[in-house]
This record gives sequence, C-alpha cells and structure tokens, in this order.
Amino acid sequence: MKAEIICIGTELLLGQIVNSNAAWISQELASIGIDCHFQTVVGDNKDRIKESLEIALNRVNIIITTGGLGPTSDDLTTETLAEFFDEEMILDQEVLEKIEKLFLSRNLSMPETNQKQALRPKSAEILPNPSGTAPGIIWNVLELWHLKNNIPKSENELKLPPHGNPYKGEFQEHLKKEKLIMTFPGVPRELHEMWKEIAFPFLSTKLAGEKKLFFKEIKFYGIGESALAEKVQDLLDLTDPTVAPLAGNAECRLRIATKANNLQDAEIKLKEIENKIGERVGEFIYGYDSDSLESIVGNILKQKQKTLAVAESCTGGLISERLTNISGSSAYIKLNVVTYSNESKNQILNVKNESLEKYGAVSEQIALEMAQGVRDLAGSDYGLSITGIAGPGGGSIEKPIGTVFIAFVGDGFQEITKLNLGILNKNNSDKNRLDIKWKSSQEALNLVRKILLKIN
Amino acid sequence: MKAEIICIGTELLLGQIVNSNAAWISQELASIGIDCHFQTVVGDNKDRIKESLEIALNRVNIIITTGGLGPTSDDLTTETLAEFFDEEMILDQEVLEKIEKLFLSRNLSMPETNQKQALRPKSAEILPNPSGTAPGIIWNVLELWHLKNNIPKSENELKLPPHGNPYKGEFQEHLKKEKLIMTFPGVPRELHEMWKEIAFPFLSTKLAGEKKLFFKEIKFYGIGESALAEKVQDLLDLTDPTVAPLAGNAECRLRIATKANNLQDAEIKLKEIENKIGERVGEFIYGYDSDSLESIVGNILKQKQKTLAVAESCTGGLISERLTNISGSSAYIKLNVVTYSNESKNQILNVKNESLEKYGAVSEQIALEMAQGVRDLAGSDYGLSITGIAGPGGGSIEKPIGTVFIAFVGDGFQEITKLNLGILNKNNSDKNRLDIKWKSSQEALNLVRKILLKIN
Repeated sequence: MKAEIICIGTELLLGQIVNSNAAWISQELASIGIDCHFQTVVGDNKDRIKESLEIALNRVNIIITTGGLGPTSDDLTTETLAEFFDEEMILDQEVLEKIEKLFLSRNLSMPETNQKQALRPKSAEILPNPSGTAPGIIWNVLELWHLKNNIPKSENELKLPPHGNPYKGEFQEHLKKEKLIMTFPGVPRELHEMWKEIAFPFLSTKLAGEKKLFFKEIKFYGIGESALAEKVQDLLDLTDPTVAPLAGNAECRLRIATKANNLQDAEIKLKEIENKIGERVGEFIYGYDSDSLESIVGNILKQKQKTLAVAESCTGGLISERLTNISGSSAYIKLNVVTYSNESKNQILNVKNESLEKYGAVSEQIALEMAQGVRDLAGSDYGLSITGIAGPGGGSIEKPIGTVFIAFVGDGFQEITKLNLGILNKNNSDKNRLDIKWKSSQEALNLVRKILLKIN
Repeated sequence: MKAEIICIGTELLLGQIVNSNAAWISQELASIGIDCHFQTVVGDNKDRIKESLEIALNRVNIIITTGGLGPTSDDLTTETLAEFFDEEMILDQEVLEKIEKLFLSRNLSMPETNQKQALRPKSAEILPNPSGTAPGIIWNVLELWHLKNNIPKSENELKLPPHGNPYKGEFQEHLKKEKLIMTFPGVPRELHEMWKEIAFPFLSTKLAGEKKLFFKEIKFYGIGESALAEKVQDLLDLTDPTVAPLAGNAECRLRIATKANNLQDAEIKLKEIENKIGERVGEFIYGYDSDSLESIVGNILKQKQKTLAVAESCTGGLISERLTNISGSSAYIKLNVVTYSNESKNQILNVKNESLEKYGAVSEQIALEMAQGVRDLAGSDYGLSITGIAGPGGGSIEKPIGTVFIAFVGDGFQEITKLNLGILNKNNSDKNRLDIKWKSSQEALNLVRKILLKIN
C-alpha cells in the first residue's frame, strides 16, 4: 500500500506554519506498514488542488489530505473534491446536528457559515471529528466512480472525469485497485483524535496480513553526524534492515528499519544491527525511540530515589522546563531557581560577592557555588548549575558569546565543565541565543546522566 | 515567478523529522516576491526524485531542493539530477580543496566518501556552502539544455531528455523561459547560510523590478478561531489585499497580504485592512509579526523600567524560559523560581503551611502567596505565580487535570485567575501535559500584559 499526504493551506506555502501534520501522519502510516511515497503541500486554490489530486491518484492507493475543512471561504477541500469527481454535495443532517450541539454545549449558537461543514458528496462517508466542528470524509474513489457510472460492465467503459485533465491509460489501470481519499482538518489536535479513534482502526483492519514496517531509533550524544556516519558507513548500504542517519537538535540519531510480519521477527533483525552499532559507538548512545536526555535523567533519578535541584542563569529555566515535561517528575524535582542577576545568585544561592567580583558571574567558581547553593537550598541529593553567555549581547574577548560553565555536585563529588559553543548561527543572533540555550541544556543533562550512571 | 520546493529525504517521509526547511524557504521566497506554488517531499529514491523533478519542471520556473548532498550512499540529489539531464559529472578541484581544508581545520583528514561532494555536472555552477562540506549547485536548465544540444537553431530542435519519461509539448514551451534548479543541503544551519549569503542576493538581483509580496500578521489572544473568522468573514473574501486566518498554538493569527512595487505602496493597502480588523476585534490583538506574548511583556517591562519575578509550579520553568528567550531580558528578570514541592513553596516563598493544608497547593490562596512570596524574595516590582495540575496524574473530582491558578501582584493590586483547561488532548496524556503547560503560560503572560497596560 502506497500513500501520499496532501496538505492544503496557503499558510504552509508562505512558511507561516511548519508542516508538523505531514510528519505526524507519516509516522502513523509507517507504523501500520503503509509506505508514504510523497508529501505534497498546495495552497487554497481549486485548480492546483485538483492537479495534486490527479498526480497522487496516478501513483498511490491512499491519499490523506489535511486542511481546508473549516467553515471559511478559503476552506476548499470538500468542495474541490466534489467538483473533481463531478459529485453532488448533500447536507448531512447527522453532522449538522452534531455541530449545532457542539456550539450549544459552549453556550453559543451556530454561525451560518458552519453549515458548510455538514456538506458531503452524496456517495462519500463521513469521517467523524470527535473534538471539533470539521468532520472529514472517506472517499472510496473506485466505489464513487462505479456509482457515478452505474458500475461499468467492462473496464473499458470507465469514463474520464470531467475536470479537463484527462487521465492517462495508466490511471485506469490503477483505478481497478482500491483508491482511498481521506480528508482531515489541519488543526493538529483534531487530526490526531480523528486519526486515532477512527482512521487508525479502519486502516489497520484493511491492512491486516500485510507486512508492517518496524523501526528503532538510536540516540547519540557527544559524537558528530559525520563521525557517526563514518563509523557505520557499511551499515548505511544495507537493504534489510536499512540504517539511516537522522538530523537531531544538538544530538545524533540513527534509524534501523525493517519490514516483517510481526514484532518478534522484526526485533531479531533489528537487534542484530543494533548490536553492531553498539560495538562501534556504544559509548555515545544515550537512549532509544522517544527517549530524551531529560527522560533518561528522570528515569535514573526515579530509580535511585534521588532528588535534583537546578540553578540556571543563561538557560533561563529551560533545563527546569525540560525536566518537568516528564510526567512524574515531581518525585525528583522539588525546587529549581533561575538566578539571572548577581544579586539573586548571592541572596538566594549564597554565591559569595567576592567570588562574583573576582571571577565574574560566568566562571567555574560561580557555577560551583551555584550548584552547591541550590543543593543546600533545596536539600536535594544533587545540585546542577549553569551560567554562561547566550548573547546576542554580553560577550567579551575573554568570555565570548557561547562561553558556558556547568557544575554538578553531590555527596563527595563535584564536576565542572566549560563549553566554548561560539556563535552557532552567525546570521541570526536571536536564533543563536536559543541555539546556545538548547545546546547548553543538552550538555548539562548529558553530564548529569553520565555521572549518575558512573556513581551507581 | 513561480517556485516549487522539493525536499529530499526518506526521514521526512517516515515523519522522523518535521520539515522546517520547507517553511523557512517559503518565507524567504515570499519575501522576495516569488510565489511558492508547491512543496513536495520525496524519499531517497532516484526514480521518484526524477518523477518529482519532471512534474515541477512542468509547472514552475524555480525549483529549490533540500537534502541529499551529503557524502553517504543515500545522498542522491546531484547524481540523480545529472542522470535526469544525461549530464557528465566532473570533479570540481576548487570544491575538493575547500572540503579538504575544512577537515584540516578540524585536525581531521578527509574521509574518501566526502570526495563525492566535490562532484558537479559539467555545465552547472557551484553554490558555495560557507559552513559545511556539502556545496549546492545552480542549474540553469535552459542553458544546460542548449549546451547539451549545441544550442539548437530553432526551438523546434529542442530534443527530449533521455530519462524515459518524454516531456509533453507544454514542457517545451516552458523550456523557452528560464528554469532554475538550486540545490541546498538539508542541515538547516547550512541551508540558511547558503541562502542568505549566496541565493538571496542572486535571486533578488534576478527579480529586480517584479512586484513583491508584503504581508503583515496580526496576533490575537482571548478569542477563538471560529469567532474571529466570523467577525472578519467578509474580509476573508477579499482578493487584494488577502486576509487569511492562520492556526496558532493557543492563540489566533490573521495574515494580510498584498503585492506591490515597494513597501510604501504595500503599507497603505495593508493599513486600511488592519484598521478594519482593529475596529472589530482590536481588544484581542496583542501584537504583530514576530511578536510573542513574552516579547510584548518584555517590551512593556523594559519601557516602564520595572522588574518581574516568577514562581512556577505546574509550568515547571516554561514561563521563565519564554521570558528569557528574549534578548535583553536580564534588564527585567532577576530571579525566578520553580517550586514544585510544598516544602519549597513554604521554605523559599514563605507560603504558609496552614494555607497549604487548608486549601491545597493548587488553589487561589496558594497562587496569591506564591506571587507575593516571589516578589518579596526577588525585591521585584511585580510577582507572577502559577500553580495547577498538568497531569497525567494528580487530578481529582474537585480539582481535575487542567485546573490552574494564576496570580499577579504589584504595588496595591493583586489579580487572580482560575483556568479550567480540562483535558486538551485526551488520547495522549503526555502531550496533554505539554499542552496544559503551554496554554497556562499563554494565559499567565497575557494576564501580565493586560494588567501592565492598564495600570500605566
């Protein structure tokens, strides 16, 4: 089964929205063994939507669209599909009632424009939207086509669609196989719910028996992309399983993928390659799949029943935010502080004023005093601190932008690291500020991870 | 000038990377008046890359590709383009020397595989990469074609390319106009630098004289997408300027766009529509274009020369992180704390133990004491606090997941808000946790913004 995702929306073509829907659907398709061959983005323009549909119908079996299901006049998906297949639109009373109820439950009356969302082509089915007003539609193109033509007696009688771009003979061949079009809203939350509650079980049932794609992602910290690729160069040429390097945000990833009938078969094949990778670059592996440095640090702390307190300067709360993104983090995080000013470092964390004067706020000594200070303040097992210059202002010759000190302290140990990140993104200093914050948080979390693993 | 972006990489089709490059390039194209009509994503597969190229050459003038320029065997872009045009590949000595130097500067010797990156089609030009090893190529298709065919005497003599998919007559018409293919690496930082240093000036010069697209984004908080669309329904039907609603993360946006010869002309047209929008829903506008709630709050604080301190519980540092993403925020942020546990709320912020026992940590009273406590602790002009239940654990019947209290205090005022966010994302409780954190941070920043504007 081959699929194409068509995301509809001029805002995507203007770059005002990053297309996270395409990535999300692609992952879902892969997880049930459907190969996504293309992702297409097209604007709110009927002709170009039709052009994209035609191309997709010529090369895949399943077309997933997102966007264009809203009540406004630039929401064109349903209308365009109906025109494309020359199909009559009818008002679905059931959908209309649902939309009206939804507005009522919010103590609002339904605006007239929302009536549009209850329209569907006569022979298509509704794909319910549990959480929003915009339902999607499942279009079984072959069925639609047969219905329209009173089911042709022979394949040769299939007529061409009426939108002016005659299909090639090739398309008629394709048409003999089932072709599905499924439309979803562009709002990620609604898309996700509709997918999980309706599309996922529907497609999974349809595909029972076909081989599924299984993959495992290995996550690395402390090795560059090229260096990693070189160490596993021969594996990148394999055809089953395949190994592919993926870009990461200040980390590296490798994906191992294989097609198999079931998880057990897949795991044997994946494990063999994973072991080979482990032998070569195992020291840089920090986790797998949905792991993040913060989730790994959290797991270790939870397992050891230890607590951590963080004092941040240049990262401004990012490390705290990442650690508390993990559910259950209240078990090991009790208190973190963001001491941006010298005064707060002194008053809250007991960093000595003499040290601040002598070494400056961005220094090994201050990092150490901050880590000790926050550990004392929180009464935690460990203290982590970070102080540095994220820019765009504040750099000097001795301490340029990107100079960062990290300290991690606990019973009987103290570990201090200096980073010279430099300017990671020279054309965009505000973006560079965020890059330095992120990279510093990665380094800090990795330092904690490594030491916690070492001290048992 | 019409453009299509073709992003090459199987990792995109597997959804392991979100396609931020397409959005970034689209914005850049729009800013110099090039209409991006399509974005296509295709895997590391020669046949499908050729198919995408052919479709794009049939419908646009400029094709921008990303990805597939690396040294590994699944980097196929240059090779596939050369095959597509039946063009000989040559080793560019200048590029090779640059790559070797880059490795030398890192005290490494160049791996053999990187030699591949110095290959280019004989008649194509190199698009230098200032920060990485992978240069791109500028392909003037028309010129390539003429060269290949010893410049035909008449247009009719243009021969078809040899890759098996004969072009339609339509394509020959297109070929008479200039067609550019520009290839970029997939690594965002390298792409951005190459674009800004080389592609941007190149394309801008080429396009001098053409009308450019100008747009302005208006950002709203406190009004839903449907309600906003309804208030400006008639404006959404305009053709020049156009008005389009954009999805936002717990906020709303409208884009007004127009084509004009220069900024002045554009501004007059945009302003007229902006005023109309302002008359209808002005109370919900918080900013424009790259503004965020944190940048607006920062601007107001800077202007008033006031300081803010934040005490967070459920948001875990997110508000602090957002505020400190703004460069220069050290002027108004001195100290923030994340008091996750009851003990830290009591010990650090002087929240009364009796209050914690009587009202529970998620309550109006505790929010108030936290805000007062952090204001006292930091000696700041204002204190902001937030306490709530982000889930997935911790909810109860009286205080379900999504219950959040926000307090904002200053000289002579205290403002407390209760949110009932409920479960925003019922199928994914970890994602829901992040949604609740984000939405709470939006509410808190907007509360601060509104009150700061009111108290002058």
